[in-house]
Amino acid sequence: MALTPKTLPIPSTKTIHLSATSTEYDIHIGQGLLSTLHPRLQKLAGGKSYRPFLITSPNIWKLWSKQVRASFPEAESPTVLFLPPGEKHKRLPAVESLAEQLAQHGADRDSILIAFGGGVLGDITGFLAAIYMRGIPYVQIPTTLLAQVDSSVGGKTGVNLAAGKNLIGSFHHPRAVFADIALLKTLPPLELRSGLQESIKAGIIADPKLFAYLEQNNELIANGDPEALTKVVTASIKVKANVVAKDERESGLRMTLNFGHTLGHAIEAATGYKKLLHGEAVAWGSIAALHVALARKVIDPDTFARMANLILSYGPLPRFKATASDLVALTSSDKKTRSGRRAFVLPTGIGSTEIVYDVTDEELTAAAESMLQTMRATGVKPS
Amino acid sequence: MALTPKTLPIPSTKTIHLSATSTEYDIHIGQGLLSTLHPRLQKLAGGKSYRPFLITSPNIWKLWSKQVRASFPEAESPTVLFLPPGEKHKRLPAVESLAEQLAQHGADRDSILIAFGGGVLGDITGFLAAIYMRGIPYVQIPTTLLAQVDSSVGGKTGVNLAAGKNLIGSFHHPRAVFADIALLKTLPPLELRSGLQESIKAGIIADPKLFAYLEQNNELIANGDPEALTKVVTASIKVKANVVAKDERESGLRMTLNFGHTLGHAIEAATGYKKLLHGEAVAWGSIAALHVALARKVIDPDTFARMANLILSYGPLPRFKATASDLVALTSSDKKTRSGRRAFVLPTGIGSTEIVYDVTDEELTAAAESMLQTMRATGVKPS
Ligand SMILES: NC(=O)c1ccc[n+]([C@@H]2O[C@H](COP(=O)([O-])OP(=O)(O)OC[C@H]3O[C@@H](n4cnc5c(N)ncnc54)[C@H](O)[C@@H]3O)[C@@H](O)[C@H]2O)c1
Ligand SMILES: NC(=O)c1ccc[n+]([C@@H]2O[C@H](COP(=O)([O-])OP(=O)(O)OC[C@H]3O[C@@H](n4cnc5c(N)ncnc54)[C@H](O)[C@@H]3O)[C@@H](O)[C@H]2O)c1
Ligand SMILES: [Zn+2]
Ligand SMILES: [Zn+2]
Repeated sequence: MALTPKTLPIPSTKTIHLSATSTEYDIHIGQGLLSTLHPRLQKLAGGKSYRPFLITSPNIWKLWSKQVRASFPEAESPTVLFLPPGEKHKRLPAVESLAEQLAQHGADRDSILIAFGGGVLGDITGFLAAIYMRGIPYVQIPTTLLAQVDSSVGGKTGVNLAAGKNLIGSFHHPRAVFADIALLKTLPPLELRSGLQESIKAGIIADPKLFAYLEQNNELIANGDPEALTKVVTASIKVKANVVAKDERESGLRMTLNFGHTLGHAIEAATGYKKLLHGEAVAWGSIAALHVALARKVIDPDTFARMANLILSYGPLPRFKATASDLVALTSSDKKTRSGRRAFVLPTGIGSTEIVYDVTDEELTAAAESMLQTMRATGVKPS
Repeated sequence: MALTPKTLPIPSTKTIHLSATSTEYDIHIGQGLLSTLHPRLQKLAGGKSYRPFLITSPNIWKLWSKQVRASFPEAESPTVLFLPPGEKHKRLPAVESLAEQLAQHGADRDSILIAFGGGVLGDITGFLAAIYMRGIPYVQIPTTLLAQVDSSVGGKTGVNLAAGKNLIGSFHHPRAVFADIALLKTLPPLELRSGLQESIKAGIIADPKLFAYLEQNNELIANGDPEALTKVVTASIKVKANVVAKDERESGLRMTLNFGHTLGHAIEAATGYKKLLHGEAVAWGSIAALHVALARKVIDPDTFARMANLILSYGPLPRFKATASDLVALTSSDKKTRSGRRAFVLPTGIGSTEIVYDVTDEELTAAAESMLQTMRATGVKPS
């Protein structure tokens, strides 16, 4: 293929410094970062001795253990603890089991946890680090696109209850994030495309250049070109890091990251968190949110079309079964709702948003209905 | 009885303001505070509506539910959730079960948890509040002496692992503490006396007046006289609040609160956390620590005798089975140990301490041996 990336001059290796109220740390993005893991951790530990505990899933470890081990001198190899893959293991018993293993291995406040996996593994490991001995350090090595552009940055950690997703958790920032683009080579293509929806979100809410780059390099990006992905990941993380730096605890600005998520979460709930990947649900949720913005004339039809087309161009997106009113009913349990008011994020142009609190159930139902029409026309059978 | 308290002019109702780096709150101490609970919570909520969830144990609720309910208008009565009593329930599954119940009742960040019980219940409820929806508010209503003078103040929350006590937790401060002395009326006498050992500790490490008051009013205090207990609780909380205000995260000064606890924890571990109450183990641990100080000539024999006698005068203390070297071996797993150095708190006089890092196993074994001699001479059969 002779395609080459078109604009967005971001160097292929990059460090983003996140400085928030309670902490600051570096996010490193590049290809082959894994090979320099050991010296980077040593630097983080400031020369003091530290004991690394790497937490991962067997499937990921099978693919990447050689590269990780190669970075460490034999004697300083991390102790590896395992968690089965899958959202259904993101629960407190998994945290307890890992904590007992840490204690049995004598882990203490001079240890450092390494989260090596996707968002599920990162959320669990971060939470484990938050509550083991009332908090020990950890780093994130996100291995999915979603984890690289979203979940590994920002310090939200936690697990699910039977009663709902992410209802248990802590804010606990990593000491560093290492986003190695090479890891995405083994990621199933659907996971890659689904994760890219969060990058599209970043473009829509805060970065017109990223938006244009995603528009212009669709084929390269969706096929996993490492150079192109490096640029997309870097720009997406910048959006997230900026927002987190300004609003660490989600009292205002950070809510803009929920663009597309109000109905996205409703779609996930309506389909039992099984049929759609998170990014796919967010994609449909975003289209519904765009319809609210269009109906309110907050964006013009051209902007609407560009945004909706960008989302759909990283599809095909899967069909699902739910009525508009089902979905709207499910948004009322969204935990972003406080005191009955539903915060809703609307794009006001490419790269800008507003948060409104007065979207009515009727408006939302109409927007969901329009989204469902698009789904019936373009949606494919879920794989 | 015609005994009246002798010195220490502390008014019988008192508010202590704790102002630390990350938070500030009031600790109210008095008799019959329960009857004003509802208006006090309303004031805390700043006039906004809030939903109270009270967490307690069936045995405590049986004794005190009438008084609690009387404070609330019928329609605003708290939702009550239960936890069985006992240290063995201080584990993650109990937290998960309570969290599911909270979610089923629709608790959110506008809810407030009320911990109504001893230290076990307070530690669990505080931790639940720390991690439910990444943190919601809670207040402490400690119902044991130990919880009033120690565990309800300072923001340490958490649960046990099979591998060790308090290995899982968070720092999460309550919005207020209500220490109602009247609640101690129903407390088993042994629990009262055991808890008083933490007040003795407070006197030894930081408050000569409290120390003298405990010396001079032994009978009144040990028999649960409410006026005398109010003074002891107030002075003890002041010691803890002062230390926490200066060192919220236990990087230095706060370690002085561990006086007597290095060997105290070892005694608890050696006896399977079953035979002795926490305060009783700390009492023996304190006597061992006094022996280290005496042998080092950090305190003179008179001071040693006053301190040891005060501890023993709130006995009788129970016997237990362990050798000095067993106990010393068990201190090495104490989580206060960092990088191999064992922090050890020595009194340097009544109301003053130093933290040392060079206590050798030999010194500690000799001190434990001396303590065991006292135990053989004065210890009684555990009840
Ligand atoms: N903390 C936050 O701020 C935040 C933000 C967004 C999402 N999340 C959470 O992230 C989770 C979703 O994360 P996800 O999308 O990464 O899913 P995931 O962690 O379940 O990973 C998806 C699948 O890919 C596999 N995998 C991971 N890396 C791989 C690789 N390099 N090669 C091959 N296979 C690989 C995993 O084992 C898993 O089977 C959800 O639980 C969500 O709640 C958290
Ligand atoms: N968080 C901290 O800073 C801190 C400090 C010290 C101790 N702790 C923890 O505190 C716990 C011990 O607390 P505890 O000594 O209060 O024990 P506890 O909570 O187990 O209470 C002792 C017993 O008394 C009963 N009880 C409580 N109040 C009563 C009342 N008013 N009338 C009758 N019965 C009553 C309880 O149901 C229980 O059976 C331990 O788990 C310890 O780790 C925590
Ligand atoms: Zn998302
Ligand atoms: Zn104690």
